Amino acid sequence: MAKQPPETWMARALQLARRGLYTTHPNPRVGCVLVKRQRVVGEGYHVRAGEPHAEIHALRAAGEAARGATAYVTLEPCSHQGRTGPCAQALIEAKVKTVVIAMADPNPAVAGRGITMLRDARIEVRVGLLEDQALALNPGFVMRMNHGRPFVRLKMAMSLDGRTAMQSGESQWITGPQARREVQRLRAKSSAVLTGVDSVTFDNSRLTVRPEALDLDDAEAIARRQPLRVVVDTQLRLPQAAACLSEPGRTLVATRAGHDDERRQRLERAGAEVVDMPAGPEGRVDLHALLRYLAETEQANEVLLETGATLAGAMLDAGLVDEMQLFIAPTLLGGEARPLFALPGLAEMAHQRPLEILDIRAVGHDWRIIARPRS
Amino acid sequence: MAKQPPETWMARALQLARRGLYTTHPNPRVGCVLVKRQRVVGEGYHVRAGEPHAEIHALRAAGEAARGATAYVTLEPCSHQGRTGPCAQALIEAKVKTVVIAMADPNPAVAGRGITMLRDARIEVRVGLLEDQALALNPGFVMRMNHGRPFVRLKMAMSLDGRTAMQSGESQWITGPQARREVQRLRAKSSAVLTGVDSVTFDNSRLTVRPEALDLDDAEAIARRQPLRVVVDTQLRLPQAAACLSEPGRTLVATRAGHDDERRQRLERAGAEVVDMPAGPEGRVDLHALLRYLAETEQANEVLLETGATLAGAMLDAGLVDEMQLFIAPTLLGGEARPLFALPGLAEMAHQRPLEILDIRAVGHDWRIIARPRS
Repeated sequence: MAKQPPETWMARALQLARRGLYTTHPNPRVGCVLVKRQRVVGEGYHVRAGEPHAEIHALRAAGEAARGATAYVTLEPCSHQGRTGPCAQALIEAKVKTVVIAMADPNPAVAGRGITMLRDARIEVRVGLLEDQALALNPGFVMRMNHGRPFVRLKMAMSLDGRTAMQSGESQWITGPQARREVQRLRAKSSAVLTGVDSVTFDNSRLTVRPEALDLDDAEAIARRQPLRVVVDTQLRLPQAAACLSEPGRTLVATRAGHDDERRQRLERAGAEVVDMPAGPEGRVDLHALLRYLAETEQANEVLLETGATLAGAMLDAGLVDEMQLFIAPTLLGGEARPLFALPGLAEMAHQRPLEILDIRAVGHDWRIIARPRS
Repeated sequence: MAKQPPETWMARALQLARRGLYTTHPNPRVGCVLVKRQRVVGEGYHVRAGEPHAEIHALRAAGEAARGATAYVTLEPCSHQGRTGPCAQALIEAKVKTVVIAMADPNPAVAGRGITMLRDARIEVRVGLLEDQALALNPGFVMRMNHGRPFVRLKMAMSLDGRTAMQSGESQWITGPQARREVQRLRAKSSAVLTGVDSVTFDNSRLTVRPEALDLDDAEAIARRQPLRVVVDTQLRLPQAAACLSEPGRTLVATRAGHDDERRQRLERAGAEVVDMPAGPEGRVDLHALLRYLAETEQANEVLLETGATLAGAMLDAGLVDEMQLFIAPTLLGGEARPLFALPGLAEMAHQRPLEILDIRAVGHDWRIIARPRS
């Protein structure tokens, strides 16, 4: 067999890591491949928090063959005593010769410690191979570690003339089944789904991952973890009968302090967890504070924003939208229908919000545009 | 040389015909290739009304070699005495052996006559080779002959959230230079540019083809024919100082009868040609009547609709939009900005206007979607 470039093995490790796309929350997705004499002697990926890290799976699979091997890991091995011990220590004990790491740990408090442990044990360490791909695999984990907030992905279903619903709010269904399947998968890989009280009330949305709609082999296992549902509800108006309150998983209602205990208790009896947030602009729930809370208390990595023009516009204006996935249906709803974004105060072309388009592709009869705000 | 399938020669004839894309108005674009023993012995295309038809160019180029050749023509040769005599007669006199025709003449009054002339002269005639491509080459000519109205192509420049201008009307420039170049080319191939009085007044648009903006080798020759400018102006509100009135080429102002002679005369002195139209819905200019007028009196084949939400919506509601070219800029203008289409009365999802998307591609930093209404 011809000598493979190291990128080949790291690409395999990234591919393995992706198998944890829907299940590792709140941990990052990580893959590991052990290679000796141009042959894989062990590989593994992190499946679920509380279960072994990728390196441990790979070392167990390799057994004695790990000695003298090169380990390709998509993220710096941990140095802390987790449920399965520090992975750096395990690699040292298995006597691997070299460790190639796609990206250092983004947590500033521990970054580099695993690398130092390995080097202290005279293991050769290289860092940065396919780093961009490794970063793209865990945008939420990286954002949370670096900036103390989750990565926010905005999803919208719209007509070609930029409308998300009729004036009445009627919106089912603008896009077709394939686009809706993609949205289910976006939910499944998110730690939390964020919405506004009006959207969730009007549509009576469940905001759940439905295994039958995922169209994935391990759909049942994936749907066992439901993303946290988060409703922004400054005035505490969410009805007790809201469908999302009786679904499996948790529903957080983010409100402002000072509401009478009765309304709060009624919602809590109906299944909600009510949390007080500081006030932001115009007395509404402070969105920066909410995202910090979700990162710190809920360890939320990726948040899917599924909402109407008001909250979407407010998030955009606050600089809190990192990526947009717009599902565009080949239809027109007209100028009376509901817009994508309320952006009050945007009155001149000079203040437009430029985007960078990353991808456009067909999804059934619809089209999906992935874009991000340009700073 | 291996034997070429007949499609090869017809494809060449279509390619030649396309060279007349910007110049044949009001005639169709037509190409002709004469082939003998697997070799082109003559070819030509129709350049400009008043000049010879494609067949005459090809026959002249072939000279004696035309005898016994097969002629590939993208449109049925004419049977009427035009400025260069009937082409069917010229093919007969040149003693070609076979004539292969992509599409029959769409004019119901003369369709088949050229074919009959040829067959009466014992020339073998085959019809329908690459017919779809031949039809696509002359959508306007075909529409005018079959339905007595031009083919209407709607062009709009929009933000990703479906906005064509700020609330104030400010819109320069949503899209980039490459998209604007494409719009110049759309104008150049149109018989007429149709707009509403408010759009043309606010932007003070010239609605002309500017050779330097076409980025084509023969730009100067193309821009010598300016498309007819047509302003829908029910109340005769167009200012005398409107830029389009002093540009090369003609400006037609379509209004309703009954305006005082002074306003009309003032506009005519400023360079406009004012024409009275019957009243349509809500007392506005009847759009069906206007398009019939443009087909009959101006022999307009393709009309480019460049306008705001009101006229665009009215044209769409009247079933008079055949194709849309939407140039989408990667930017957001917000929910206060101006919509693509006013579609009054569209209040339920059941009444949405479904489209068929034919093409999506990058044009510089923008994206162009070509769509057509689904019936």
